[in-house]
Amino acid sequence: MCELLGMSANVPTDICFSFTGLIQRGGKTGPHRDGWGITFYEGKGFRTFKDPKPGYQSAIARLVQNYPIKSKAVISHIRQANRGEVNLENTHPFTRELWGKFWTFAHNGQLSGFEGMDTGNHRPVGQTDSELAFCWLLKKLDDAYPSPPEDMGDVYRFIASCCDQLRGMGVFNMLLTDGEHVMTYCTNHLYWITRKAPFGKATLIDEDVEINFQEETSPEDVVTVIATQPLTANEAWNRMKPGEYSVFHGGELIESNTALLKDVSFAEAKPGCQAPTSCS
Amino acid sequence: MCELLGMSANVPTDICFSFTGLIQRGGKTGPHRDGWGITFYEGKGFRTFKDPKPGYQSAIARLVQNYPIKSKAVISHIRQANRGEVNLENTHPFTRELWGKFWTFAHNGQLSGFEGMDTGNHRPVGQTDSELAFCWLLKKLDDAYPSPPEDMGDVYRFIASCCDQLRGMGVFNMLLTDGEHVMTYCTNHLYWITRKAPFGKATLIDEDVEINFQEETSPEDVVTVIATQPLTANEAWNRMKPGEYSVFHGGELIESNTALLKDVSFAEAKPGCQAPTSCS
Repeated sequence: MCELLGMSANVPTDICFSFTGLIQRGGKTGPHRDGWGITFYEGKGFRTFKDPKPGYQSAIARLVQNYPIKSKAVISHIRQANRGEVNLENTHPFTRELWGKFWTFAHNGQLSGFEGMDTGNHRPVGQTDSELAFCWLLKKLDDAYPSPPEDMGDVYRFIASCCDQLRGMGVFNMLLTDGEHVMTYCTNHLYWITRKAPFGKATLIDEDVEINFQEETSPEDVVTVIATQPLTANEAWNRMKPGEYSVFHGGELIESNTALLKDVSFAEAKPGCQAPTSCS
Repeated sequence: MCELLGMSANVPTDICFSFTGLIQRGGKTGPHRDGWGITFYEGKGFRTFKDPKPGYQSAIARLVQNYPIKSKAVISHIRQANRGEVNLENTHPFTRELWGKFWTFAHNGQLSGFEGMDTGNHRPVGQTDSELAFCWLLKKLDDAYPSPPEDMGDVYRFIASCCDQLRGMGVFNMLLTDGEHVMTYCTNHLYWITRKAPFGKATLIDEDVEINFQEETSPEDVVTVIATQPLTANEAWNRMKPGEYSVFHGGELIESNTALLKDVSFAEAKPGCQAPTSCS
């Protein structure tokens, strides 16, 4: 399997502390040694650092830990390969353009029965079920919204209904962002925490590092961190439910719902995403 | 304007020496201080390092200079902005997927009269004429080859005919790669050199660095480096002609031609790319 890390913030914020915790699990405190990646958005642009090497041994990961890149939307992933070789094209996150925006995706889990999924012109380059699922999602979005949509709330609800289908094929925990919103979808393991004033101290679980957020922030800062497993020992993380999706914007949770409600509302609204197994 | 750097090799080769020369021109020995980027292919995958900061001051550029990433196809760019703000979305190279392959593009020059160019579903994210030209090229390729083509020679000749059109709109020096071939197109400034056994020594123009390729290579290695201006003082670089395109594979020049011949052969073969100014 793999582990995910995401961040949404209302001001450009670095993720060095959380990333330092996650990357230890890339072969040192965890078994996810088959590559890692992290994507930072800055405005409409992004940059990704990735390496098929174990995160805890990677010189590039050390740079990311020590060089504070400030961003309002970040997605990171450490990999324990189950499908697809350990190489660069199979290393998450994956980024593609749609509607004049860059979309970045990372997945934790494993899918089955995905042969024949139609990805249209969004062709996978690597061999992972994850990139295939991402390309399939982009095709669904392209079909449902041939022109760039105005109501992004509607778009995220539609994506969630497609994620419900993917969950029908196995374990599908996901982080997705267009640089503005950070969307999550949970099958089994996904936690989140929102930090805002009054800020306190936090201690990493995986490395002997403590931070005093009070010294690093302004009183108006709001930052949400999302992770497969909590990264700090002394804070209360919220656990997401199976089938739950959430959308974060500017560090705040702005929408959340679970599969039961979505199945009712989206099966009717979007005939393209209905039965959990009809993914062709 | 900007400067380009490209590499094609028959074995995975690092570009630390040439990149060290180029990056000095990013604000130290040259005026190209508005960002830099470099894309390395490893198999079908790629990774890009980029920074909107001046290259010679960038901590990420220092990592790239000192951390030998071995690749058979590399494209790099240092920017002196003329159109589009200095930010990440306007920083070259640009990478997009087409036909299940990642294509990476960087441009030196300036175009005019490009308003209304049809890029279809390949929408630019930033504001540069360069990204717009890349998206327009992808649309042309998508239209001409709706399915992944088998004869890449035909594809590169078609791209060259499209580049002839772009040259009709201003200065268009280009590097383009799918990770296998590295294609160049020249309007005015582009040089190349192929290094193979017997290898000698080379000295950078922009930094006090000398390398003895004999110590760094095997006798079978073949490496071509392409640059806007020669990077070494003691070697004979080949200058490309206006309207000339070249395709390199495994370090060797495998195809080269100039606009005159292409205009004849492609105007007939591909009605989508004809008159130099009809780019809508």
